[in-house]
Amino acid sequence: MNFLENFELFGNVEKAQNFIETIKSGRFLFSFVISYTETCEVPGITFAGADKNSIQFTPPADAEYLHYGYCKTIDDIPMTPDGKPTPGLLTKTALESASIPHLTINAGSKISPQLPFIETGLSFGKNISTQDAMTDSQVSHAVDYGRIVGRSMASLTDCLIIGESIPGGTTTALAVLRSLGFDAKVSSSIPNNPVELKNQIVNSALERIDSDHPYSIIAKVGDPMIPFVAGMLSSASDVSKVMLAGGTQMTAVLAFASKIGFNEENTAIGTTSYITNDDSANFKNLVKEISDIPTISVNPGLKNSQYSGLRAFSEGFAKEGVGAGGSIISSMLKTGNDSAKFLEMAEKEYHRLFTSL
Amino acid sequence: MNFLENFELFGNVEKAQNFIETIKSGRFLFSFVISYTETCEVPGITFAGADKNSIQFTPPADAEYLHYGYCKTIDDIPMTPDGKPTPGLLTKTALESASIPHLTINAGSKISPQLPFIETGLSFGKNISTQDAMTDSQVSHAVDYGRIVGRSMASLTDCLIIGESIPGGTTTALAVLRSLGFDAKVSSSIPNNPVELKNQIVNSALERIDSDHPYSIIAKVGDPMIPFVAGMLSSASDVSKVMLAGGTQMTAVLAFASKIGFNEENTAIGTTSYITNDDSANFKNLVKEISDIPTISVNPGLKNSQYSGLRAFSEGFAKEGVGAGGSIISSMLKTGNDSAKFLEMAEKEYHRLFTSL
Repeated sequence: MNFLENFELFGNVEKAQNFIETIKSGRFLFSFVISYTETCEVPGITFAGADKNSIQFTPPADAEYLHYGYCKTIDDIPMTPDGKPTPGLLTKTALESASIPHLTINAGSKISPQLPFIETGLSFGKNISTQDAMTDSQVSHAVDYGRIVGRSMASLTDCLIIGESIPGGTTTALAVLRSLGFDAKVSSSIPNNPVELKNQIVNSALERIDSDHPYSIIAKVGDPMIPFVAGMLSSASDVSKVMLAGGTQMTAVLAFASKIGFNEENTAIGTTSYITNDDSANFKNLVKEISDIPTISVNPGLKNSQYSGLRAFSEGFAKEGVGAGGSIISSMLKTGNDSAKFLEMAEKEYHRLFTSL
Repeated sequence: MNFLENFELFGNVEKAQNFIETIKSGRFLFSFVISYTETCEVPGITFAGADKNSIQFTPPADAEYLHYGYCKTIDDIPMTPDGKPTPGLLTKTALESASIPHLTINAGSKISPQLPFIETGLSFGKNISTQDAMTDSQVSHAVDYGRIVGRSMASLTDCLIIGESIPGGTTTALAVLRSLGFDAKVSSSIPNNPVELKNQIVNSALERIDSDHPYSIIAKVGDPMIPFVAGMLSSASDVSKVMLAGGTQMTAVLAFASKIGFNEENTAIGTTSYITNDDSANFKNLVKEISDIPTISVNPGLKNSQYSGLRAFSEGFAKEGVGAGGSIISSMLKTGNDSAKFLEMAEKEYHRLFTSL
């Protein structure tokens, strides 16, 4: 089949085609990085959880759902306040349909998942609207451990897919992008992107910046996921192909990674069309501005779903997360499935979840 | 080259030859399981550490040495009281010479290693001479998490090598073997195997056994490593070849694994000739009694070393540990190196360590 029918390519299209050609017959490994920033506790900043208290359980619960098909730290799977499911539903459908193995990495989650996971000793990030996210030495620790984990994972596969779950992460990503000099407009898990609120938080965070050293910038206005995944990318991209699976957060990772160095020839961003078509953000141009790596975008075709909970993704809820886009792209490359087939499987999983709950 | 020149095969020799044929051109992954039993605090029971207090640091320090080439939780590498180096030196030489990737798994170590590792939430085992090692539910947890980790690791390789580090582990292994009905004589890290002391501890432990349920036996007289590695074996052997890299402890793993089920066709034990030639133990016959899997034994040729610290292994110190034997076998299969070449590399590493210390 012609894979390109399923995907839109942005940036360096030739690189995108080469990337796809190289990995389509190879082995994939999905690494799921869970983290936390207290910035998500600012009211109205995220929908990644049914209520304020449950947000902290979303990353470990997503990891448990990917592995077990249900959660252990909470009763149901992670949802928006009005019951729309986690994008992890898309990730799980994608990984299972293609038998792509996955590992969970705890890079500063407030709660540990109830399954075996890779421990990094990182603590969660502080609320950047009121204080520094972490110390410079915590940033170094995150980069160093990210490099170790990235090298190990990459030595076990041909294409390392990196997804993340960090509620409130688009706000810290915006702060990092702006302090690194990029005129970013970022996406949100909320249809009416709370741009004003994000900008207030980011502006007060940026006032604390007193050095243009990238580590210091991450320490003051970032979160633990950004330096850890950047470290993973910098070592893994020397060994294997790397697909950064995500939207806004991965542009912040890319911006910081371009300061510490990584192999552009082995790197691509894989995301959903809900991100690349988001007019409240400038994702495609932002990636181009930061680095000469391609963006591969997939339309999961959820707007055709019989379930409102799945159509919601195409209507601006969540849009991306838990590495959904990159996982769908990888599963389509491995199985040859198209969007119609993916929708069919996602609806089956949705039905399983919402009749069994 | 003819690999069999380097190895002695015991048990089902035809299975051993098939095992070697299947894996020699494949991918290897070394998983290093670190754990702890307070049984090692009984004076005179182990040499796995320079003194009583430092024994608890040996498993994490071995993990750090394998990864960094030096330790972080202690100053030097793990040694016997009189300065003989950890068998991890042999493992590191083997894995590096063959570029075999490795992952550290914390299955009840008292101290966490200072590197990224797979966390299982297991606590260390209690001293079986005075109390139960753990609860039945901790045993179930160890088996369940072992199964999860084993399946993940096996899906990333063709041959999963499993090594362990648990000071005092030969004593808990002896207790498990005897309670499961095997007339075991086990090896020791000490040349004059403290058989009497081990038997005293085992006898008092066996008095607490009030059920022949395997989980209950492990809970009363075992340690966390045994059920965890048995769980790994049971799931991994369905997916890939598995080489249990070790001596006495691995016979206890095998005895318990044969109760919970595993695929004999995909399993072998890989160890050193210092174990298979140990007259104070009955390793070869014990393996045959327990299960119809082959034993592959390698002579690392250390008796020809110019360094007394390396010759010591051939004189009965340590003998095995940190998966040394299975790692050497795997590295020889992957690189085609023989014992002479291995000795040369091990001496280089020994020289690096003891001139840099």
